[in-house]
Amino acid sequence: MQLEQIQTPTLILDPARTLRNIDRLVQKAQLQGVTFRPHFKTHQSHEVGRWFREVGVDKITVSSPGMAEYFAADGWEDITIAFPVNIRQIEAINELASRIRLGLLVLDPVTITALGQNLTHPVTLWIKVDVGTHRTGLEPSSTSIMDQCLEVIRTFPALQFGGFLAHAGHSYRSRSKEDVQQIYDSSLRILMDLKQRYISTWPELRISLGDTPGTSMVDHFGPVDELRPGNFVFYDLMQEQIGACTADDIAVAMACPVVALHPERLQWIIYGGAIHFSKDALKLDNGQICFGRMVEPKEDSWSVENTNRLPYIISLSQEHGIVQCTPETFSLCKPGDLSLWLPIHSCLTADAMGRYVTTDGKHVDHYRIRNGELGIRN
Amino acid sequence: MQLEQIQTPTLILDPARTLRNIDRLVQKAQLQGVTFRPHFKTHQSHEVGRWFREVGVDKITVSSPGMAEYFAADGWEDITIAFPVNIRQIEAINELASRIRLGLLVLDPVTITALGQNLTHPVTLWIKVDVGTHRTGLEPSSTSIMDQCLEVIRTFPALQFGGFLAHAGHSYRSRSKEDVQQIYDSSLRILMDLKQRYISTWPELRISLGDTPGTSMVDHFGPVDELRPGNFVFYDLMQEQIGACTADDIAVAMACPVVALHPERLQWIIYGGAIHFSKDALKLDNGQICFGRMVEPKEDSWSVENTNRLPYIISLSQEHGIVQCTPETFSLCKPGDLSLWLPIHSCLTADAMGRYVTTDGKHVDHYRIRNGELGIRN
Repeated sequence: MQLEQIQTPTLILDPARTLRNIDRLVQKAQLQGVTFRPHFKTHQSHEVGRWFREVGVDKITVSSPGMAEYFAADGWEDITIAFPVNIRQIEAINELASRIRLGLLVLDPVTITALGQNLTHPVTLWIKVDVGTHRTGLEPSSTSIMDQCLEVIRTFPALQFGGFLAHAGHSYRSRSKEDVQQIYDSSLRILMDLKQRYISTWPELRISLGDTPGTSMVDHFGPVDELRPGNFVFYDLMQEQIGACTADDIAVAMACPVVALHPERLQWIIYGGAIHFSKDALKLDNGQICFGRMVEPKEDSWSVENTNRLPYIISLSQEHGIVQCTPETFSLCKPGDLSLWLPIHSCLTADAMGRYVTTDGKHVDHYRIRNGELGIRN
Repeated sequence: MQLEQIQTPTLILDPARTLRNIDRLVQKAQLQGVTFRPHFKTHQSHEVGRWFREVGVDKITVSSPGMAEYFAADGWEDITIAFPVNIRQIEAINELASRIRLGLLVLDPVTITALGQNLTHPVTLWIKVDVGTHRTGLEPSSTSIMDQCLEVIRTFPALQFGGFLAHAGHSYRSRSKEDVQQIYDSSLRILMDLKQRYISTWPELRISLGDTPGTSMVDHFGPVDELRPGNFVFYDLMQEQIGACTADDIAVAMACPVVALHPERLQWIIYGGAIHFSKDALKLDNGQICFGRMVEPKEDSWSVENTNRLPYIISLSQEHGIVQCTPETFSLCKPGDLSLWLPIHSCLTADAMGRYVTTDGKHVDHYRIRNGELGIRN
C-alpha cells in the first residue's frame, strides 16, 4: 500500500474487502430469492455503487432527494428514499419522479395528501413501521392511521402503495447472534402480520426490512420481500462488537499522521479528530471508551492480526486524536509517521471525510465531497 | 427572517449577534493592550473573517496549513497554525512561509530539526506547553526538552522563537466564573514562569494563551502577551453551560424540517442528524442528554425567551434527530414545518455543514464547503 504520499487524514478504502462484503450479501439474498436494495448512504459513491451493479444489483436505497439525484446521474433508475418524506423538497421529488422509479416513506395522511396534490409524476409510497427501534414509523397497532393513509393513497392516481417498510435499528444494541435473530424474527413477524391484514385489498404490497446486523447474521431471511442493509459494504468496529463482521471484514481505515508523543502518559497525538472520524465511540471490554483501533500496513492493504494488542484512540477533539499506548507499543510510531485506524461507525466517518483513496492509490468519489486538504497532494 | 425558502438542514448565521461577540472581545483585548489573534477554526469563513478585519484584527490562528492557505488567499498575512507541526505537509508549509508571516507549534527537537533542514523561508516557532488539559504540549517542568528545542532553533537561521503557547482546554469542564478564573490564573502563571526563565536569552519571547471560557469570563487578562480564543465568535450551548455566554449570545442556529410526529412518545422527528449537528451532547440539569435546544423565529432573527420551556433534541442518528416535547409543546410543529435549534458545539456543527445562510438570506462561505443539498434551493 502506498502510504508515503499521504499528508493529512485520509480515508483508505480496500476494494478487495469491499467487494468481498458486497458479494457475500448479494449472493445470500439472491440464493434466497429476496430483492436486495442496498442502502447507499454508507458509501455515497458512484464508484462503489458500480461494484454493486457489476454483481447484478439494480435497485438501491438512499436517504435524501439529493443523494437520489447523485445516483440517478450515474444511471440508477429504481431508488427508494428511506427517510420520512420532507415535503419542503417537493420540487426535487418531482424532478426525480420524472426520471426514475422513486419510492418514498410516509407516516401520516396529511403528508400523503400534500404529496398527492403536488406530485407531477407517479411515486411508490411505503408506510414506515416502527418494529421496536422507536426512532420513526407507525406503531404496528396503529392500523386506523394506516387505513387513513391507504385511503388517501387510493385517492390520488399518482400514488402507488409499495407496502410496509421497517428498519430494525435496535439490532445495533445486540451483542449476540441470538439477540439479532430474535429482533429479526419479531420485526419480520410484525411486517408479515400487516401484509396478511392488507394483502387482500392491496395484492401487490410487499414488506421491506433491512439492517446490517440482521442481514449479516441471520441465516434464513424467511418470507421477507426486500432487504436494505447499508453499513455491511464497509462494516466497522460497532458491527464487529455486535458480531455482524470480523475486524478483518472492515473495509475502510483512516490514515492519520502522528504529530506528537507524550511518553509520560504513553500517548500519541494524531492529526485526526472529530471532523474526520465523527464522534461515535464504543466501550471496550476493559471499560475504556474507544474512538478507533490501530491496524498495521501489510503488503497491499492492512492486517488486523495484532489489533487487540495495538494502541487505540481514547479521545477526539476537533482535529486532535489522543491515542493510548502501552509500554510495549509506545515506540511503534514517532512524529511524522502515518498510523492506520479502523473506524467505529464507517457511515459517519465516510460522510465526514467526503472522499476516499483506495489501497492502490486511486481517488474514489463521495456525494458529499468536501473542500479542505486532500489526503494526497496532487 | 426568511425561512420559507429553506428545504433541508441549514445553518443560519445571525450577523448582529456575531458582530456583537466579535466586538466585545476585540475591545476587551484592545483596552488591556493584549494582542488578539482569534482562532478562525470555528467559523472558517472569509466573510466572517472580514468582520474581524473591519474592527482592526490583523493576526489570526488556524488549525491546518490548508486553512492557512484559505485565509492567506483572502489577504491575511500573519497566521499561526495552532496544531503540532505535521512534517508531512512541509511543501504546503514552505509555500505559506514564502507568502506570509507564519507561526508553527513544536514540541520536540527531532521535528524542529526536520523543519530546520527543509524550510525554505523563515517561520516563527512556538513551544506548546501543557497547562493542564493533557491533550498536547510539553509538561511545564520539562525544561530540559525545552532547552534542547531552543538549542535546535538557534542552529537554523530560518527558525525564529516566538515563545510559549498554551490552550487551557480544561476550562471546558468548568461550571463557574471562579473555576474558569482559577484555570486562567494557573495557566498564565505557568507561562509567566517559563517567560521569566528564558527571557534573558530570548528577549523577544512572548506568551500566548487562549480559550473561549477564559477570554470571555476573566476580567483582567494580566501580563499575557497574546490571546487566541475561537468559539466566542458564535458561542454555543456548551459555552452557555460553562457560563461563558448567555443563550442570547449564540449566533448560529440549525434550521431543520420536521418530518414526522410521534404523539405516543410526545416526540418529533426532524431532518437533521449527526452529519449536520455533529455528535457532541450536553447533560441537562434534569439528567437528560441534549443535542440541541429549540428557539423561536422572531422578526429578523430568533428569540431565546422560551428556550428553557421548548423541546430539545435527545438523539441523533445519521440524518434523523429525535426531539422530546411535553404535552404543552407537542403541537408547536407539524410535518413540513421548519424548526430552529441552538447547537451544542458550534465549531463542529459549522464544520459538518460547510456553509451558512445569514438571517437575511445571504450565503456565507466556509473553508470546508461540502457538496450535498443546499439549504436554500437556487
